[in-house]
Amino acid sequence: MTVFKNRADVTAAIVAARVARGLTWKAVAEHIGQSKEWTTSACLGQMTFGAKSAEKIVALFDLDASALPWLQVPPSKGTLDGGAPSDPLLYRWYEIVSVYGPAIKELIHEEFGDGIMSAIDFRLDIEREPHAAGDRVNVTMSGKFLPYKAH
Amino acid sequence: MTVFKNRADVTAAIVAARVARGLTWKAVAEHIGQSKEWTTSACLGQMTFGAKSAEKIVALFDLDASALPWLQVPPSKGTLDGGAPSDPLLYRWYEIVSVYGPAIKELIHEEFGDGIMSAIDFRLDIEREPHAAGDRVNVTMSGKFLPYKAH
Amino acid sequence: MTVFKNRADVTAAIVAARVARGLTWKAVAEHIGQSKEWTTSACLGQMTFGAKSAEKIVALFDLDASALPWLQVPPSKGTLDGGAPSDPLLYRWYEIVSVYGPAIKELIHEEFGDGIMSAIDFRLDIEREPHAAGDRVNVTMSGKFLPYKAH
Amino acid sequence: MTVFKNRADVTAAIVAARVARGLTWKAVAEHIGQSKEWTTSACLGQMTFGAKSAEKIVALFDLDASALPWLQVPPSKGTLDGGAPSDPLLYRWYEIVSVYGPAIKELIHEEFGDGIMSAIDFRLDIEREPHAAGDRVNVTMSGKFLPYKAH
Amino acid sequence: MTVFKNRADVTAAIVAARVARGLTWKAVAEHIGQSKEWTTSACLGQMTFGAKSAEKIVALFDLDASALPWLQVPPSKGTLDGGAPSDPLLYRWYEIVSVYGPAIKELIHEEFGDGIMSAIDFRLDIEREPHAAGDRVNVTMSGKFLPYKAH
Amino acid sequence: MTVFKNRADVTAAIVAARVARGLTWKAVAEHIGQSKEWTTSACLGQMTFGAKSAEKIVALFDLDASALPWLQVPPSKGTLDGGAPSDPLLYRWYEIVSVYGPAIKELIHEEFGDGIMSAIDFRLDIEREPHAAGDRVNVTMSGKFLPYKAH
Amino acid sequence: MTVFKNRADVTAAIVAARVARGLTWKAVAEHIGQSKEWTTSACLGQMTFGAKSAEKIVALFDLDASALPWLQVPPSKGTLDGGAPSDPLLYRWYEIVSVYGPAIKELIHEEFGDGIMSAIDFRLDIEREPHAAGDRVNVTMSGKFLPYKAH
Amino acid sequence: MTVFKNRADVTAAIVAARVARGLTWKAVAEHIGQSKEWTTSACLGQMTFGAKSAEKIVALFDLDASALPWLQVPPSKGTLDGGAPSDPLLYRWYEIVSVYGPAIKELIHEEFGDGIMSAIDFRLDIEREPHAAGDRVNVTMSGKFLPYKAH
Amino acid sequence: MTVFKNRADVTAAIVAARVARGLTWKAVAEHIGQSKEWTTSACLGQMTFGAKSAEKIVALFDLDASALPWLQVPPSKGTLDGGAPSDPLLYRWYEIVSVYGPAIKELIHEEFGDGIMSAIDFRLDIEREPHAAGDRVNVTMSGKFLPYKAH
Amino acid sequence: MTVFKNRADVTAAIVAARVARGLTWKAVAEHIGQSKEWTTSACLGQMTFGAKSAEKIVALFDLDASALPWLQVPPSKGTLDGGAPSDPLLYRWYEIVSVYGPAIKELIHEEFGDGIMSAIDFRLDIEREPHAAGDRVNVTMSGKFLPYKAH
Repeated sequence: MTVFKNRADVTAAIVAARVARGLTWKAVAEHIGQSKEWTTSACLGQMTFGAKSAEKIVALFDLDASALPWLQVPPSKGTLDGGAPSDPLLYRWYEIVSVYGPAIKELIHEEFGDGIMSAIDFRLDIEREPHAAGDRVNVTMSGKFLPYKAH
Repeated sequence: MTVFKNRADVTAAIVAARVARGLTWKAVAEHIGQSKEWTTSACLGQMTFGAKSAEKIVALFDLDASALPWLQVPPSKGTLDGGAPSDPLLYRWYEIVSVYGPAIKELIHEEFGDGIMSAIDFRLDIEREPHAAGDRVNVTMSGKFLPYKAH
Repeated sequence: MTVFKNRADVTAAIVAARVARGLTWKAVAEHIGQSKEWTTSACLGQMTFGAKSAEKIVALFDLDASALPWLQVPPSKGTLDGGAPSDPLLYRWYEIVSVYGPAIKELIHEEFGDGIMSAIDFRLDIEREPHAAGDRVNVTMSGKFLPYKAH
Repeated sequence: MTVFKNRADVTAAIVAARVARGLTWKAVAEHIGQSKEWTTSACLGQMTFGAKSAEKIVALFDLDASALPWLQVPPSKGTLDGGAPSDPLLYRWYEIVSVYGPAIKELIHEEFGDGIMSAIDFRLDIEREPHAAGDRVNVTMSGKFLPYKAH
Repeated sequence: MTVFKNRADVTAAIVAARVARGLTWKAVAEHIGQSKEWTTSACLGQMTFGAKSAEKIVALFDLDASALPWLQVPPSKGTLDGGAPSDPLLYRWYEIVSVYGPAIKELIHEEFGDGIMSAIDFRLDIEREPHAAGDRVNVTMSGKFLPYKAH
Repeated sequence: MTVFKNRADVTAAIVAARVARGLTWKAVAEHIGQSKEWTTSACLGQMTFGAKSAEKIVALFDLDASALPWLQVPPSKGTLDGGAPSDPLLYRWYEIVSVYGPAIKELIHEEFGDGIMSAIDFRLDIEREPHAAGDRVNVTMSGKFLPYKAH
Repeated sequence: MTVFKNRADVTAAIVAARVARGLTWKAVAEHIGQSKEWTTSACLGQMTFGAKSAEKIVALFDLDASALPWLQVPPSKGTLDGGAPSDPLLYRWYEIVSVYGPAIKELIHEEFGDGIMSAIDFRLDIEREPHAAGDRVNVTMSGKFLPYKAH
Repeated sequence: MTVFKNRADVTAAIVAARVARGLTWKAVAEHIGQSKEWTTSACLGQMTFGAKSAEKIVALFDLDASALPWLQVPPSKGTLDGGAPSDPLLYRWYEIVSVYGPAIKELIHEEFGDGIMSAIDFRLDIEREPHAAGDRVNVTMSGKFLPYKAH
Repeated sequence: MTVFKNRADVTAAIVAARVARGLTWKAVAEHIGQSKEWTTSACLGQMTFGAKSAEKIVALFDLDASALPWLQVPPSKGTLDGGAPSDPLLYRWYEIVSVYGPAIKELIHEEFGDGIMSAIDFRLDIEREPHAAGDRVNVTMSGKFLPYKAH
Repeated sequence: MTVFKNRADVTAAIVAARVARGLTWKAVAEHIGQSKEWTTSACLGQMTFGAKSAEKIVALFDLDASALPWLQVPPSKGTLDGGAPSDPLLYRWYEIVSVYGPAIKELIHEEFGDGIMSAIDFRLDIEREPHAAGDRVNVTMSGKFLPYKAH
């Protein structure tokens, strides 16, 4: 078993082990007791695991123990490069696509199969949620799923 | 009053007239009977107006009548350039930021003032909605609003 | 009436006049006796008019006579910049999008309204057509039209 | 035989095995009972195989069994980066070149040998096809094949 | 006097008026009762003025009254484009240079004349400040000023 | 043990050894008797070690002796590419992010865990410090720490 | 008549005057007694005129006398940006396309009409020419002309 | 001997074998009975060999037999990326530099040694050659060779 | 006479006035008593004038008095964008080309006419100069001038 | 000992051997009897060695004999990509930074240690040197050395 020398190699090992074992991301999430969105994002190398979650991931995928500290160190995040909008509000939305994009892709494919969420047959709603620790921006988006079909 | 020769000039005129009159986007949306999200996006040059909505917009902002056909012709859309992800699923999310981003910026500022929606104190949820015309991907996002403060 | 000093200004004048008069591209094409695809592409500044077509265009849109020689001089073509694939075969396909793209956009919108031709619900067929002057590559593509809807 | 750890390595193995065995893409397509366009695109890593097709591909090219799940997981698609047009309609055409381009290149070379499909001696036709599930945009393109010649 | 139609024109007018009147940014800041850093950044179009500050700025620089609403609407921010780091922590530092950079440039030049703050003869210190509303990252940087000299 | 053939490999070995041993950057800095900011930056390949510090680093991380001369040779510095501002004053700030950014990221994570320093809830102060060897620009920045949270 | 304030405006005036008068580049070249290649390149703003040629150009196109010194000052050259190969030998070929490209385009269109010189049906020959002042690289290229046709 | 899995590895093997054996490109060209320009370009991975030429190349450089089919499959061509001019006529010239550039570099160095062909002490001539299969654009270019000298 | 509203317009006015009057940069430099290198760079908008030099420039070129403060305010410098090397030492050399490049171009053209300084027939020498205020890097470069010639 | 298959590997081997042996570039230059500037540039893969120099380099660094022909074949040169200025005169200066930059970096570090040559405390002088084989542009530059210091 290889000794891991960086987080990227741990991520690749998780990705390969999950496909080989045929596990869904939902099953992985239930195994560590977090949401499927956070779990997928973290397994894809975008979030930092706590000590217990890290141990469960190492056990679940039978990784070398050297993966443990790497899963608990904040990783270098983001997957898009170039073309970021300079306005800070717009940038945060771009950052969501950059940081959460790969997890979103995995989860939509897991639920629907190969295809896309339409940005044309699409609806967006923005609301304010009052909150003691600071009000929140709540956004709901609904896009039709369009499947790729073999022919 | 100037004769409009392209949609971009109509957009600039709407943007200027709205600020000068101190109208909110919500008020504009109510005036034409559409959602605030669609209305803002359309006024910012990303959507095509129907004949009645176009007339109401021209009246509301006292635009030259030459604006009318331009509002009803599909515009060149999108505001980001470069750095688009090549994967079609990821691209649709990037396109949402490109096409709806300016409207999102306007509506968050209108509701909260200057600041951003956090991508760190942030939560994402993806669900499937069964639908006769094809199932839909429903996404809810919640991010804390962080204000810019003068000091 | 302004004296035209380059092709780009002639193109902008045609684009503005067509919208102001509410003419379809098909009607323009019939007026000059060419296909709607070539005519739209040429009016958008990508093709060179012959003498008779140029005169008909100037008359139809009531342009200054200085437009005449500009319509008959080969223009600087193409609308995409950056990101071109280096392989010559792939590049020709990219060039088709660059040179004919604006005309394709106009004609799909004219026929269907605002929306897109899907690249997901999409099918492609490539066949060889024997031809005395050199065999041809014949391609048929079929993509579902997806409309933008106001909401 | 190597255990596959991602789809890209499976794609490379298929590409190498096909050339080594001198199989045409048409023969591969007949073997799995899909169109040559879809099959080539899928073998080049742009589409997701069903279970039966995946098994046939693994058998045909004598791949390690670990290739099986990778062929059935939606891949990261697209081959062009940078320079994408921001308008959604134009972008779908660019995406077609990005997603289907490598398959198009293979199939034209398979049929005609080394060379290109001309974008100059070229003709384009766009028609509407009424369809119960939503009307379709039908496009036919015809470009002369121009061969590279040794000299 | 021109009617302002966007924030960029208001910014250009402030920049021109300040140089023409020989006012320092410090004097402008004292006039509106905010820090020199915030004031300069806001005058350069990166921050949103409150109603009273906006009125003082309009009076100080003798701007057309149409500047008033523009100064109170959140502007499109940021001045760097391309090359942003994808990691969210690194990006915030890049954003500081993008949003506050022009103000920093003005204030260093105002205090020291033409030249730069050295990034070589430079020292950096990062400390944690406990804070009831959430701990803060405090950074102090010290760089030697190097003047441009005529010769 | 591998013979090192360039500085990049030495940097990777230090990064891997530190995580494997669970050492903090502060502890490394104390070990060699330099500041945590300089030490982290140097270990990440951005600064040149003196002979004694180099020996201590090699011993601390049990590196091959061939690392010694590489640690003492000025490295190729900087981590950002593209998008640099052309103005020399602004560039030095960009260079600070490029050269010191990875060290800043490590030290904030070490002190606070995974998260960012806000550029919105942020304050900046620029002062002149008279100095015999040339006056200095002193900058203090304060940004709220925002943690990523698992959910 | 406008006073010219830079070379770019002189170039635009020449380009407009030539089309308006229906002069060929060959006729312009004969008028000033230089080759058609050099003359076209110089008129397009890439070369520096001598005093006599400058006067003839001003007279031929009836330009304001302020054009005279601008035609005799070395201009800012080149028309391509980005993507230049770093190797010096390859760069000189790229520079030829950048500096002479617009003239080549004009002259091929003048001789053949709208279309391209094929890079597929193309042949290249490189020979050494001994020369007292330093040997020369002589290159001959032959590419089939492919016309755009209206349809 | 390694089994070749793509054309790029075959190209690298040819390049290495030619230098190791001290063969000129002219000698390689004579060996396969094609021009030096085509041969060099093909050996550098830009052209497709016929069956006999492929066999001769494999024998000459003592390559593994698995190189044979790769030499006969149309390769992915072109070496420049980014910055291509959008105009189709200008693009073909850029493509010539992209596809033939590496061969041109090799042949000029083979004939003259290290240095460049000047784009300053340079002359260009464009002529029409009538041809039954379609007229041709003939171009002759002459540039002084400038050697790099050790000092 | 126009009131100047930014430095760029002052620069354009100086550039135009110098060509119209046929003044050399050397004469301008002597007029203000600075070196030709600094003077040209400053007139091209890269350096800050002192009060006396600014007055002499305004008088020499008969500029509107509003140019005076703009000439004395540190300008936004640099002329190259993109592609800067990240290493700080290499960047300073790139910055020299960015900041002084336009002045170098003007002065070489003034002395030699249109052409270039060869980077092939070129020699470089780097020496250390001991200096009380800090040692200096002294560089001498010698490149053959190659003229463009009309033909 | 490895057989070299390209120049880049030879360069990496020289770079590694020089640091491992603690040789200065000056010593290498004296060993082969060329200037330190040319020698460093050539060892870094930017220049072509003659037969005797190549042998001395191979002996000095104890390289495999397969390095010999690679050192004598003109390499692919240049180290900067993107952002090159299009003007030919400015480009040659950019090319000097691209081709000679790595050697300049090495030699300044060798003489002064880690740090930069200032582009602010900097002076530039351009003179004409009459020369029988063509006049030369002589440039002298002087910049203060600024050291990085540990703290």
